Amino acid sequence: MARYEIFVTYKQGIFDPPGATAERALANLGYDEIESVKIGKYIRVEVADGPNERARVAEMCDKLLANPVIEEYRIVDAEGAVSAR
Amino acid sequence: MARYEIFVTYKQGIFDPPGATAERALANLGYDEIESVKIGKYIRVEVADGPNERARVAEMCDKLLANPVIEEYRIVDAEGAVSAR
Repeated sequence: MARYEIFVTYKQGIFDPPGATAERALANLGYDEIESVKIGKYIRVEVADGPNERARVAEMCDKLLANPVIEEYRIVDAEGAVSAR
Repeated sequence: MARYEIFVTYKQGIFDPPGATAERALANLGYDEIESVKIGKYIRVEVADGPNERARVAEMCDKLLANPVIEEYRIVDAEGAVSAR
């Protein structure tokens, strides 16, 4: 069994509504030091060992876990090896 | 200016609806190797330098960015130092 961590974030230049909302809310709570807040998804998947494991995890991101039109993602395996798109 | 990464995840034993949904959807798409999917939040904040910076970021998590009843969080600074709750 292998574990992967996936970080899904909005692409550069794409508006991040939850981030903007949190930014305003934190400023309203008195946290004047806030300069920016970006909110994405932190996904942990466990998959059975198999061929093309990592490529298949990337495919899952393209098909379901991320929206490739507005989001990008980074996949990190248990050894820390990174692939991104 | 300092950057922090925050990972918000459901506490052990708390049901993770988006994760369960993705798990089923991936199985339906033919990814039989999927054993589990957990979906949390990946937050990046930038704050102006100041006293108690990290403690204030933890406070932001307790007050707004995470729900301490059902979620836990891990804060990682630019040097990789981790604090969790």
